[in-house]
Amino acid sequence: MLKNDRLYLITDEKQVGYLSGYRTADAYVVFDHGKKLFFIDSRYFYAVRKRLSKDWEAVLGSVREAIDYIAERREKLFVDFDYTTLTFADKLRSRGIELSDCGAELKEMMLYKSEEEIKNLQKACTIAEKAFKNTLKIIKAGMTELEVATYLEGQFKALGASGTSFETIVAFGANSAVPHHQTGNAVLKPETVVLMDFGCLYKGYCSDMTRTFYFGSKPSKEFLKVYDSVLRAHEATYDGIYEGIPCVEVDKIARDVLTECGYGKFFTHSLGHGVGVNIHEAPSLSPKGTGEVHSGMVHSIEPGVYLDGKFGVRIEDTVYMKDGKAQTFMKVTKKLIRIKAE
Amino acid sequence: MLKNDRLYLITDEKQVGYLSGYRTADAYVVFDHGKKLFFIDSRYFYAVRKRLSKDWEAVLGSVREAIDYIAERREKLFVDFDYTTLTFADKLRSRGIELSDCGAELKEMMLYKSEEEIKNLQKACTIAEKAFKNTLKIIKAGMTELEVATYLEGQFKALGASGTSFETIVAFGANSAVPHHQTGNAVLKPETVVLMDFGCLYKGYCSDMTRTFYFGSKPSKEFLKVYDSVLRAHEATYDGIYEGIPCVEVDKIARDVLTECGYGKFFTHSLGHGVGVNIHEAPSLSPKGTGEVHSGMVHSIEPGVYLDGKFGVRIEDTVYMKDGKAQTFMKVTKKLIRIKAE
Repeated sequence: MLKNDRLYLITDEKQVGYLSGYRTADAYVVFDHGKKLFFIDSRYFYAVRKRLSKDWEAVLGSVREAIDYIAERREKLFVDFDYTTLTFADKLRSRGIELSDCGAELKEMMLYKSEEEIKNLQKACTIAEKAFKNTLKIIKAGMTELEVATYLEGQFKALGASGTSFETIVAFGANSAVPHHQTGNAVLKPETVVLMDFGCLYKGYCSDMTRTFYFGSKPSKEFLKVYDSVLRAHEATYDGIYEGIPCVEVDKIARDVLTECGYGKFFTHSLGHGVGVNIHEAPSLSPKGTGEVHSGMVHSIEPGVYLDGKFGVRIEDTVYMKDGKAQTFMKVTKKLIRIKAE
Repeated sequence: MLKNDRLYLITDEKQVGYLSGYRTADAYVVFDHGKKLFFIDSRYFYAVRKRLSKDWEAVLGSVREAIDYIAERREKLFVDFDYTTLTFADKLRSRGIELSDCGAELKEMMLYKSEEEIKNLQKACTIAEKAFKNTLKIIKAGMTELEVATYLEGQFKALGASGTSFETIVAFGANSAVPHHQTGNAVLKPETVVLMDFGCLYKGYCSDMTRTFYFGSKPSKEFLKVYDSVLRAHEATYDGIYEGIPCVEVDKIARDVLTECGYGKFFTHSLGHGVGVNIHEAPSLSPKGTGEVHSGMVHSIEPGVYLDGKFGVRIEDTVYMKDGKAQTFMKVTKKLIRIKAE
């Protein structure tokens, strides 16, 4: 929790949700030496008041009222410099308020997940993989990428998620070679590689998962070789993580396997990132990542190989560190799935 | 367009999309005395390069490369202070870069829509209202708010939208009295007020629309009176807008009608807001709004009345100013729709 001898203002929607349990835009959360105030305008006030826990006070008001409250305190204000714009900082400073950065404090706090957070993350992952399984049952030739994405997202909501944690990627054939392909109107034909990268939101917590599968019965040798290499990179990473492993090392395990297989230079992004109320947060598992992985952290493992104009393969789970080992939230197989193209 | 004798850095996703035609996160757009550079990392580079128009140059790189480029220029950098965080400003300043605000310039530019923008906004509105009509055909007792929202959003994509422009609101009964109700698991029963507030994205442009309708055949007299009052407020506003009308005046037309009907104090938000690549942008049609409405501007008209614990009514169109008059993008009736509850 935040320190009881300081005055804080939190405005980022996800941090507001993280701290109060009620995620909404346009909220101004003030922590005043342990006192928890939630400034919110009339559109949300009544709903917020009903849903905040007892130690919180909902205040009908907006940015103006929050700033008035803070200005009267006449003391240094802690805000997260990562989420404070120059315009907003000017507004605060023009009222004589001195600003200090609490970004590192919040990041550190959010890095270690509580049991309840782990439960929500597990649920977000379980919903996503059920939705994926249901989608595999209905996928057929003639569907567009957007139709597949829409069905999957409908399943998210039907299964209890509040929405997506990022824009769903469905990529057919050569589109899968674009790591962040924009899902479009490409039509599914037999004998095609399909890459799906998706996640849902459950109680404000994200899931993140990618599967690449084959629609048809005659995958090329090259595809099978790439798939096998990416799977080996994924498994080696998963098995190789230990308590306190440097973030760069986690990335290196996968990169070494892919380099050994001859695909190192086609692994064009980093191995993984933290997942929580943000789809991307600390730790950063990349060749430039700092810090170490410790129990309580949650992150993705997502090696990939992209052959421009041909296909791409990425296999991703969201995992958490427990008892000194990585533990996946996912149950769906990472072995190659083949869907009959009837 | 931006000035040709200045150096700019644009990082907001929607502004990037507005300027370049390619909307994506993590892009760093540099305008260097008319030269247009799009710094983008390997995840998106190849897709971006293919889709930018001729006068743009895609540069493989991220924030580091963009800042290196700017630092070498040794001149004042224009950024939008509304979208520049203290952390990012520190990063730039630590490289000796002096910052100046171009927020007003961008806001002014985006306030007046081009013909192509109007076309995209019209399309976003047309898709949204078609999706709404299709949803009315399938709505039935037993459905949850989330199921209705999911169906509507599926229709958006089926009709060519890339997604939603904000979180869809579907509110049954007393939930409609919460202006920004969080769509949930409430179940539709006969004789219920239903409020739906929704919009989709088409080529990066938003639509915004609300309809309140009655599911059943015996609406209460009170509901009919409120509905009629809100409709009158909407129509009076639509008819009353003229070239150069002050923003406060637009709000006042609706507020006066509702006050006259005895519901003034239940109209708890402002009358409308600009719509473009942002779902909320200038102008602000509120009791505190500044400026005037002129041809080329696009905004919502959305009076509402909310009776806590009973029901709420809001009727909203997105409209544009043309030839000195408001012109709606919507064709769906604003008269009360009744859906038979079979």
